[in-house]
Amino acid sequence: MTNPVIVEVTRGGRVESRHRGSAIVVDADGKTLLSFGDVDTPVFPRSAAKAMQALPLVESGAADACGFGNRELALACASHSGEREHADLAAKMLAAVGRGETALECGCQWPMDQNATIALAKSGADPSQLHNNCSGKHAGFVCAACHLGIDHAGYINYDHPIQGMIRDVMTDLTGAHFGVDNCGTDGCSIPTYAIPLTALAGGFAKMTSGKGLEPQRATAAKRLVEACMAEPYYVAGTKRTCTRLMKTLPGRIFAKTGAEGVFCAVLPEEGISIAVKCEDGTQRAADATVAALIARYLDTDADTRAALMAQANRTLKNWNGIEVGTIRIVENQDLR
Amino acid sequence: MTNPVIVEVTRGGRVESRHRGSAIVVDADGKTLLSFGDVDTPVFPRSAAKAMQALPLVESGAADACGFGNRELALACASHSGEREHADLAAKMLAAVGRGETALECGCQWPMDQNATIALAKSGADPSQLHNNCSGKHAGFVCAACHLGIDHAGYINYDHPIQGMIRDVMTDLTGAHFGVDNCGTDGCSIPTYAIPLTALAGGFAKMTSGKGLEPQRATAAKRLVEACMAEPYYVAGTKRTCTRLMKTLPGRIFAKTGAEGVFCAVLPEEGISIAVKCEDGTQRAADATVAALIARYLDTDADTRAALMAQANRTLKNWNGIEVGTIRIVENQDLR
Repeated sequence: MTNPVIVEVTRGGRVESRHRGSAIVVDADGKTLLSFGDVDTPVFPRSAAKAMQALPLVESGAADACGFGNRELALACASHSGEREHADLAAKMLAAVGRGETALECGCQWPMDQNATIALAKSGADPSQLHNNCSGKHAGFVCAACHLGIDHAGYINYDHPIQGMIRDVMTDLTGAHFGVDNCGTDGCSIPTYAIPLTALAGGFAKMTSGKGLEPQRATAAKRLVEACMAEPYYVAGTKRTCTRLMKTLPGRIFAKTGAEGVFCAVLPEEGISIAVKCEDGTQRAADATVAALIARYLDTDADTRAALMAQANRTLKNWNGIEVGTIRIVENQDLR
Repeated sequence: MTNPVIVEVTRGGRVESRHRGSAIVVDADGKTLLSFGDVDTPVFPRSAAKAMQALPLVESGAADACGFGNRELALACASHSGEREHADLAAKMLAAVGRGETALECGCQWPMDQNATIALAKSGADPSQLHNNCSGKHAGFVCAACHLGIDHAGYINYDHPIQGMIRDVMTDLTGAHFGVDNCGTDGCSIPTYAIPLTALAGGFAKMTSGKGLEPQRATAAKRLVEACMAEPYYVAGTKRTCTRLMKTLPGRIFAKTGAEGVFCAVLPEEGISIAVKCEDGTQRAADATVAALIARYLDTDADTRAALMAQANRTLKNWNGIEVGTIRIVENQDLR
């Protein structure tokens, strides 16, 4: 199947670039409400699945034992920008189990946010693993392992008990297969498993509705989604799409991006779950598409819908601040 | 026409993302040797046309009057990384006509190269317009205007004489139309005109062969292409694709990228000109495609060809330096 063009980038009134992709929207029962493009061929959810990967932290009791509130849980689900608040909170999470930055195995990264990189460089400091966009997730893994009395060393490996727990949780949520045969290595070195977009959206539907989940898991899932919605800055950062979308209507939108053009979102009150994959892996197209789908399915007023559509269809400015073009949603003819 | 998939990005042995695009290869007479995808619909060449835009600097006699050598001419054709050497040379070019950074109208930009940004921030300095990736091109415009006794103020505007000269040059080279109706604004605020890839490749064929050009223009064109090949660091920068490609076989490859997935290359000895546009505007796909096309048409030994193909098909590593996937050329079935 050739995926439809979902987003166009214009300049001088012409289409300069175009992005193809696929998406699925399901209701609380996992029933498909809208779908376009190839939603069946497995794709790597990458960081869009972080809220699922954070479930063992909560279910194990580690989060409570560490005294974690919404901010820490949001950071455990985050691809954060490496701003000072993010790095500091990741360090605080590790300190709760008597560990430090060296316990992390995500690798060192200059902050994803350029302003944070400049601020860090100006301070004379070098980046650490705490600045890696996944440090909160990894801190959560270390905390869960420590609480369970498991040696956290090697927690990034397929055979480590933490990764086994994540496979169990994700199998339960998505019904998909998680094995060595559909396993790749993520940017932060943990396993990522290729699953269909249908399964990914269905997994978020279960996380949101709790339907078919054991009560403890349903409660933990609800708590994580609510923590992210309560502390959107800790899920991403300044000017980031996840943060902006969740701030549009606080408590009504959960949104989490993943590398290579994946984006998932949940509207808990409407019982709606969304999964998007831009074929070419481009962030800007996934951002626009998920914003438009949220605008379509969120039960809200015209102003809020307009605010969401302003994140889907936006103006591009150049170095002088001159408007040079747009990113816009293509009205899709290929819905089924 | 649906553009074919030209580049795939893999992870864990699976295709994670794919890029579509179009490309054309022409000989010294502009005759098509290979073409795939849509090469007829106009696209914005963006910075891939900078060597054409630098012709008035040379033809006007400004470059000689300023005492510019290969480095300055290369920088006039550059999308440089904003490294210290680039910013310093742009300042030196402006000083040759008694002007400074404030004469530039490209806008301020932190260096495109992250390491250069970090070095600049650590030094406590802030970026200036000299760090804008187009500062060398703009310095060239200012020098040409000063030499010709034209007020350089507003040189970025469609109606300024410098932009008129560029339109005349590009019309002569490409045979395409350059008007307000196919004009957009580039990242650095100068006009960019949508023209077919066929015309863009044909323009480089003329620049290289000199066929059909007045002797003065042919000489100037040859000089610019040779300057870039002699000083590839000044055309881009550390680890950049243009620089790496030109360093592969010094003096035999000219390569110039443009924003939104455009890439042009010339093999002067073979009389080959190449123009590529990745449909989704992604740099990584354009980089890979142009490297593969150069490898195919360059008359060279197996080692050099392998070095070029290693730039087309390459391994992706994560923050821990672990190999997680590849970028690879798709064997194209859609050649015509």
